Amino acid sequence: MDVKYINPFIIATQTTFKTMFSTELKLNKPILKQDRRTSGDITGIMGLAGDKKGTLCVSFNERGALYLYSLLVGEKYEKVTSEIVDSIGELTNIISGQSRKEFEKIGLNLSAAIPMVIVGKNVELNFITVTPIVSVPFAFSLSNGDIDFINLDFSFEDAGSK
Amino acid sequence: MDVKYINPFIIATQTTFKTMFSTELKLNKPILKQDRRTSGDITGIMGLAGDKKGTLCVSFNERGALYLYSLLVGEKYEKVTSEIVDSIGELTNIISGQSRKEFEKIGLNLSAAIPMVIVGKNVELNFITVTPIVSVPFAFSLSNGDIDFINLDFSFEDAGSK
Repeated sequence: MDVKYINPFIIATQTTFKTMFSTELKLNKPILKQDRRTSGDITGIMGLAGDKKGTLCVSFNERGALYLYSLLVGEKYEKVTSEIVDSIGELTNIISGQSRKEFEKIGLNLSAAIPMVIVGKNVELNFITVTPIVSVPFAFSLSNGDIDFINLDFSFEDAGSK
Repeated sequence: MDVKYINPFIIATQTTFKTMFSTELKLNKPILKQDRRTSGDITGIMGLAGDKKGTLCVSFNERGALYLYSLLVGEKYEKVTSEIVDSIGELTNIISGQSRKEFEKIGLNLSAAIPMVIVGKNVELNFITVTPIVSVPFAFSLSNGDIDFINLDFSFEDAGSK
């Protein structure tokens, strides 16, 4: 996959975290994903279509999801509720919207589908494509100084190709 | 959801099964899906975007998936392989393509994302939308006379709405 299609997703994710959570996401080395399983405990999925097509997954650890939700609502949560699931879907929606803005800057118009959220670790989730699947890990600091991670997995290709 | 947005998905699924498998799908009563879990053992997911937006899930029982794949390749399979997973993704792609043709007939242009396939029963998979989620069960006969089912779950809404 051309690096110019990777950067919009990276910039969008970092921008979203900075705006919504005042949190810096440290980019770790992107890899090609071989594993056919979700990369965290909770995974938002968004389909993109238009001048190109793609699907984007944003995976959170439970601890990270609870922490980020507490930043939004100013209250601590001990377990994943349907409100937290919805907020992960909404966050996936916002990252995808921000990505679409970044793609507009390079002349590509995309629209977004309805987001889905999988709750569960190591769920077998396959991208059905011959295009490589890029996996981008980001690190961020929790307020107690601990480090947590999110993972952005995506594939992106010509709209006409299979 | 307006019934005119339900029929294209139903017609597309029945047409695809007739064309690809010479198999009649008997439509059972559509319901509103409340359950936040996948409706079968293997689930294809496709995002649609454009004049409207939606996400479509097609769920198969393992037995049904093995049967349909055997019809395609003329050989019996005992367990779900990566080829079968890919074929479920491709089938989801074809049903979505056929749905898009049906939507064109009512003046709506849609494009498709990259399909995803979840392998696993009762996986928590949430549609993040305030629009109802429609679940359509279809029955079909296996060659030994047994009846199996597939389930079509989808939500479809204005492109501008959340």
